[in-house]
Amino acid sequence: MAHIDFGEGIPGIRGPMIFSPDTAKPLNDLAQVLLTGSNTLTLAEREMIATYVSSQNDCLFCQNCHGSIAAQHLGGSDADYELISQIKQNYADTPVSDKMKALLGIAGKVQQGGKYVTTDDIARAREQGATDKEIHDTVLIAAAFCMYNRYVDGLATWQPSDPEVYREIGKMSAKLGYVGRDYSKPLESLANLRDKAQR
Amino acid sequence: MAHIDFGEGIPGIRGPMIFSPDTAKPLNDLAQVLLTGSNTLTLAEREMIATYVSSQNDCLFCQNCHGSIAAQHLGGSDADYELISQIKQNYADTPVSDKMKALLGIAGKVQQGGKYVTTDDIARAREQGATDKEIHDTVLIAAAFCMYNRYVDGLATWQPSDPEVYREIGKMSAKLGYVGRDYSKPLESLANLRDKAQR
Repeated sequence: MAHIDFGEGIPGIRGPMIFSPDTAKPLNDLAQVLLTGSNTLTLAEREMIATYVSSQNDCLFCQNCHGSIAAQHLGGSDADYELISQIKQNYADTPVSDKMKALLGIAGKVQQGGKYVTTDDIARAREQGATDKEIHDTVLIAAAFCMYNRYVDGLATWQPSDPEVYREIGKMSAKLGYVGRDYSKPLESLANLRDKAQR
Repeated sequence: MAHIDFGEGIPGIRGPMIFSPDTAKPLNDLAQVLLTGSNTLTLAEREMIATYVSSQNDCLFCQNCHGSIAAQHLGGSDADYELISQIKQNYADTPVSDKMKALLGIAGKVQQGGKYVTTDDIARAREQGATDKEIHDTVLIAAAFCMYNRYVDGLATWQPSDPEVYREIGKMSAKLGYVGRDYSKPLESLANLRDKAQR
């Protein structure tokens, strides 16, 4: 049970965001600009960074939501979902670019703590062509997910285990982004799961 | 030297905020609503939570800025600054309320990771009269400073050691809040320090 009563069947960050709309606004605005704003990192690459950090923080909800959004930005095939899964396990052995590997390395350091990032980590990313903005955004995405993950887990929110739920969240968020959404509207997949269970 | 060139003499989070105004906006909006919005926790109490988490994350800039803001909200005396220093060392031995001690306990758990917060931690806070909103805001303030701290340290920003600088930041931020500020304007105290050094 969540530490605060957010109502039944409301997954992850949606509960606290409905509970506290005044803080939900800047939280969603930040995700919108970081993850969907103009950038030389693709939408999928930015969601990969968010997913990897959430996985390192062991946040089930965030790693599955953002992993699914990343996979959807890549095309949404089973192979895309498999790539995201591999990035979480061991990104060094995946076919992502060397620049992305260097940036994921920086993100992993930020997850441990800001002071873990070394000048060598930054130099390695620059050697692979990373720009100031890409380095800045990687650090801030990683830092921001250290916040979102703690918000979701620190309040013990309900986090569905069914992959179908995350597939739906991934499709909707990849299409609609993070602002102007009505998070109080129940997810279709959850309604379907309830219907199936009642049949 | 910072990992990105933010220009000389720009302390802490100001550098990356000037570098990236699009992300600075929601970051400041979040601080504004969390730390200055309507709340049964006082302005000083919320800044104490921010300070304690920043201290646990070993972020020199954030713990000194927000510690100074907290002290200014209390009145700005040397005794107020001393109380903030004691809270960082061992809040259990300070004269803050039992409710604040329970909330600082929750904040410390969030700093380690969201999953560290237990139902017992929450029950203890409720026994001391903490409301849902106070618990929610404590978790989110703690989570947010895990982000701000990583942003400041992950980019290796310049962090002044002179207490005079933080006293000025504390006075200004306690008075002006977090939005609508021009962070590119140099701090008077830094200009004064430079003048003194050149004399």
